[in-house]
Amino acid sequence: MTLLAERLAAFAAAPVRPSPEARAILALSALDWAAVGIAGVPEPVATLLREMAAHEGGRPEASALGHEARLPARAAALVNGATSHALDYDDTHFAHIGHPSVVILPASLAAAEVAGAGMEAMQEAALIGAEVSIRVGLWLGRGHYETGFHQTATAGAFGAAAAAARLLGCGADGVAHALGLVSTRAAGLKSQFGTMGKPYNAGLAAAGGLEAALLARAGFVSAPAALDGPQGFGPTHAGAGDLSAFDGLGEEWLFPQVAHKFHACCHGLHAMLEALGTLAPGTAPDQVEGVEVAVHPRWRDVCDIAQPRTGLEAKFSYRLTAAMALAGRETAALSTFSQAACTDPALMALAERVEVRGDASLPDTVARVRLRLRGGAAHEAAHDLAAPMPLEARAARVRRKAAALLGEPRAQALEQALAGPALEPFCALLRKPCDAGAVPAP
Amino acid sequence: MTLLAERLAAFAAAPVRPSPEARAILALSALDWAAVGIAGVPEPVATLLREMAAHEGGRPEASALGHEARLPARAAALVNGATSHALDYDDTHFAHIGHPSVVILPASLAAAEVAGAGMEAMQEAALIGAEVSIRVGLWLGRGHYETGFHQTATAGAFGAAAAAARLLGCGADGVAHALGLVSTRAAGLKSQFGTMGKPYNAGLAAAGGLEAALLARAGFVSAPAALDGPQGFGPTHAGAGDLSAFDGLGEEWLFPQVAHKFHACCHGLHAMLEALGTLAPGTAPDQVEGVEVAVHPRWRDVCDIAQPRTGLEAKFSYRLTAAMALAGRETAALSTFSQAACTDPALMALAERVEVRGDASLPDTVARVRLRLRGGAAHEAAHDLAAPMPLEARAARVRRKAAALLGEPRAQALEQALAGPALEPFCALLRKPCDAGAVPAP
Repeated sequence: MTLLAERLAAFAAAPVRPSPEARAILALSALDWAAVGIAGVPEPVATLLREMAAHEGGRPEASALGHEARLPARAAALVNGATSHALDYDDTHFAHIGHPSVVILPASLAAAEVAGAGMEAMQEAALIGAEVSIRVGLWLGRGHYETGFHQTATAGAFGAAAAAARLLGCGADGVAHALGLVSTRAAGLKSQFGTMGKPYNAGLAAAGGLEAALLARAGFVSAPAALDGPQGFGPTHAGAGDLSAFDGLGEEWLFPQVAHKFHACCHGLHAMLEALGTLAPGTAPDQVEGVEVAVHPRWRDVCDIAQPRTGLEAKFSYRLTAAMALAGRETAALSTFSQAACTDPALMALAERVEVRGDASLPDTVARVRLRLRGGAAHEAAHDLAAPMPLEARAARVRRKAAALLGEPRAQALEQALAGPALEPFCALLRKPCDAGAVPAP
Repeated sequence: MTLLAERLAAFAAAPVRPSPEARAILALSALDWAAVGIAGVPEPVATLLREMAAHEGGRPEASALGHEARLPARAAALVNGATSHALDYDDTHFAHIGHPSVVILPASLAAAEVAGAGMEAMQEAALIGAEVSIRVGLWLGRGHYETGFHQTATAGAFGAAAAAARLLGCGADGVAHALGLVSTRAAGLKSQFGTMGKPYNAGLAAAGGLEAALLARAGFVSAPAALDGPQGFGPTHAGAGDLSAFDGLGEEWLFPQVAHKFHACCHGLHAMLEALGTLAPGTAPDQVEGVEVAVHPRWRDVCDIAQPRTGLEAKFSYRLTAAMALAGRETAALSTFSQAACTDPALMALAERVEVRGDASLPDTVARVRLRLRGGAAHEAAHDLAAPMPLEARAARVRRKAAALLGEPRAQALEQALAGPALEPFCALLRKPCDAGAVPAP
């Protein structure tokens, strides 16, 4: 029986034919990643890692978010992983149970800069790495997550190694050694959620995967049986070990199921905001008599703060965020969730008319809203976050999010750079320091 | 109830009063560590990591084995951890179930160089870090090891963080954050044994612990509950969680139980070599009629190669290594285990007279030997590796080992440097490149 590392290495080292949809979604994820990454540059966790890397210095090999000078590739991957996950606003893959792009793109970018690869090769490797991380996440399964492991980092490190080793030209044997090495260092616990440890996990996975690939290229030898062999990563980390996770590898692409976040607040509010988004346009706020929101009851413990007092609390309030949507505020922008919003008279007036109730018959990805207007008319809408989104609609939303985070010109420049043949125009945009007017002031 | 991270942090940040014995054994372990580290410099795993670090370059902060220029502290810790474990000839702590010095000393040295600390502070921090790693190893327990985890790296990373954070002046809060950060990255699988992945584990633990301490000093925040809290490192990694592992912390020192290896071959041969060492002196090889060796039968599958053909096979041969001991060869030296030894007529003649048998009544730390001389006389001896060794005897053996590995002058210089007030003379000896006559040619 083929070892898992060898099977994944054969996939990662060979020519591939991703579906056009998979390529397109990867490009969207790269834009989304760059936008949340650049917006994350001022975050304390990002600043601390950038400062550590800047203090160390070293060969200018790869671009780091918000840092003008290039850094050694391992340091760039660490900084970029943590910076892009700092806002928790990056993409999510529910089958993987994690956030693929914040690990795979930092490793791929750094390896591509080291290898002198172009944009297409970088994106192709990132797609392959994402596929590896998603399928390793599936193979580890829900039990791995529920035991306490953070698939973003654990499964992610395998994908990072595969993507980086492909770009570095390791060949199938080299990729297998890189995956073996990753098996002895992949780590990340959910018990760090709510601290800097969470984005750190993403950075560690990106840097660890890249380091494994750099070492494998140089001739480092590991035990590739250490994924699925006796006492391998799966058996030692509560992995389900269901090999059907790899069915169709290289033919069927799971990455396109990735979900993007379009609102800079708790995920539990997103279905409501999407539903209101279909009703609110054209409704003058003073015409609103009342809003009824129904969601799965579990969310009421998570994000139903009735009278938020801070920007952070605003991100966990059905009533206030519903008011924002009705008032036409841009909920994709970080700056919308401010302390000032919590006492804004126009928002307060609307928030008082929002009523939230739990409905256990709803899946937890669904919200149903009913908008009652003065004069007796009413409109209803529902939204299911799990429903697939047509590519064009998704592209428009990602563009709007990037513009809300970075301003229209920079968002457009990023998208153009991602469509070009060379890596450098994109990297140059990432490297711009945050105090150079990169991020709209909150 | 106090969190484990807080309890360990209070210990690691406070003034301590180690026993004189603990201090003396730590100094011996530092000599032993430096000797096996310098001897490990030419190993491929060490060369590859040194080359990666040299290629990256960066701020010259800390000394790396076999590398003239200083490296960034994180890189130095990685190189030193892997280099000193490359020969698998470093110290072992059986209760910890691992090798403490190859993780703790690299992290302590790098942090001490960054902090400008002296030799005494470095050794004291290393002793504290070793105590933390040993007790965390005990707390994780044998089940953790048997599940597949490599305590050297997993428990070791916590000790590395504690030692480094103490030297960096993090204070108890900072040490706790460093330990929390380590909990989300500590890793290392036994399934890498037999590959470069094993020494890599030690380097990763040293570098990871140091990085956590550097970040904690800069203000990085983690969840200190992530050791023993829900879904913390212990519960997620098959840890037994027996808090009695920490009884007497700061009063009673477990580090002195550490065992040093005195022969550059498989551990299964050591008890026999020690027993023969008490009989062989004064016996002319041509007076030997026969040698009978009794060991626990499990060792016969491990290291009873009757006719070894290579230097590596020589390290797993009762008959040939018994012949070496009888012929007065230095079994502490790497160069003794050569291909030439396998066909040396004098050794072959002796090896033919050695008979090995299994005796299930013996503990696996014991060997019994019977030396029959021409003319009918016979001498018997037994040795138990688990028996404590008086400090002076141990010091003499460590010195002899260091001299066998490095030559007398360099071994003496290391010992003198370890007894001095400043770190630099010791570090300068570590940095000497291996092609500068540092290691006697094999």
